[in-house]
Amino acid sequence: MKPTRWLTDEQRRAWISYIRGSQLLDREVDQQLRQDAGLTHAEWEILGRLSEAPKRRLRMGALAGRIVAPKSRLTYQIDRLVARGLVRREQDANDHRGVDAGLTPAGTARLRKTAPGHLATVRAHFVDLLSP
Amino acid sequence: MKPTRWLTDEQRRAWISYIRGSQLLDREVDQQLRQDAGLTHAEWEILGRLSEAPKRRLRMGALAGRIVAPKSRLTYQIDRLVARGLVRREQDANDHRGVDAGLTPAGTARLRKTAPGHLATVRAHFVDLLSP
Repeated sequence: MKPTRWLTDEQRRAWISYIRGSQLLDREVDQQLRQDAGLTHAEWEILGRLSEAPKRRLRMGALAGRIVAPKSRLTYQIDRLVARGLVRREQDANDHRGVDAGLTPAGTARLRKTAPGHLATVRAHFVDLLSP
Repeated sequence: MKPTRWLTDEQRRAWISYIRGSQLLDREVDQQLRQDAGLTHAEWEILGRLSEAPKRRLRMGALAGRIVAPKSRLTYQIDRLVARGLVRREQDANDHRGVDAGLTPAGTARLRKTAPGHLATVRAHFVDLLSP
């Protein structure tokens, strides 16, 4: 068995600070999105990626590549967004086997309404703490 | 309504890189702990905080202050660790109203056995990517 390579104190502090900071940041971002828009952070990310795509729609596989969530959870999250009318599934016009996820007008409206509060949270707990 | 203050491109890239990086890192750390020790990252953190405490035990409230998880989830996580024999609840000798969580010998053994792999993961995906 190889001997354990422990972290130096400095490395350990950096790691613990990172864990603590990222958990606090996640919590702030989640809380704002849930309270103001009834969305999880993962759902928010999906709406965001779709809004940036041409025609506000993306092949499911392409969407999966832009968010880190595993494919099985993505399907579940899309189902939930579809049930709330924020996303719809659309057949690809050029490839009938392909399915796109597309932002609905209600999804676009939810995104616009929520963006200012979300950006304020990201600023307060991330951007404003960074130097360029 | 105040106008939305959008992020600059640079701020936006920093935020998206951070989200992506932190999700990938979480996934690596979670996967290693689940596969090698059957522990979630939150459970691993609890065992770690207890192992550093005098006599390897901490008042529940003090433990709650050292990990970021909300109190209700901490109780649930401790229950699961107690059920697996890794943690035990102990009455505080000085304050009979107080309850400590303490690491069991099995908990200590699990922590020791898992530490090398966990540290290797933290090194590979975090420490080795940082400059001092």
